[in-house]
Amino acid sequence: MKITVFVTPKKNVLDPQGAAVGHAMHSLGFTSAANVRVGKTVEFEVEGQDTPEFRASLDKLCQDLLSNPVIEDFRYEIGA
Amino acid sequence: MKITVFVTPKKNVLDPQGAAVGHAMHSLGFTSAANVRVGKTVEFEVEGQDTPEFRASLDKLCQDLLSNPVIEDFRYEIGA
Repeated sequence: MKITVFVTPKKNVLDPQGAAVGHAMHSLGFTSAANVRVGKTVEFEVEGQDTPEFRASLDKLCQDLLSNPVIEDFRYEIGA
Repeated sequence: MKITVFVTPKKNVLDPQGAAVGHAMHSLGFTSAANVRVGKTVEFEVEGQDTPEFRASLDKLCQDLLSNPVIEDFRYEIGA
């Protein structure tokens, strides 16, 4: 299975990287760009089936390793 | 409009961050994880309509600012 995890800064958390990118976008003429947020994705392949146990272990992996739950949200997509 | 740009390392490019995450996943018991790749997302809102001119300017923005075309691919989604 191919898993893609999306990690984004929470809405109320300051995102300095997003602010910097937004500033650069304005400088390049994208003057209407607003609310720029920079997140990350982690893609990987894994053996096995999409079971509730697997989803539980994936949730734990996302919380413990791939995201910082204090300042980030995560979601994932499970592909074929 | 809400734009989400996805930037991922090209397939043939070494991804040290992905390798480090993959190693940590193995240490945490996700032993079947393979081909771990770490990318980034840039989300922002922008005024205007989804015209061919807008898409051209967005392509240019992605190539010039948001990605390094030598080692990264990008794609984007345009939402409501």
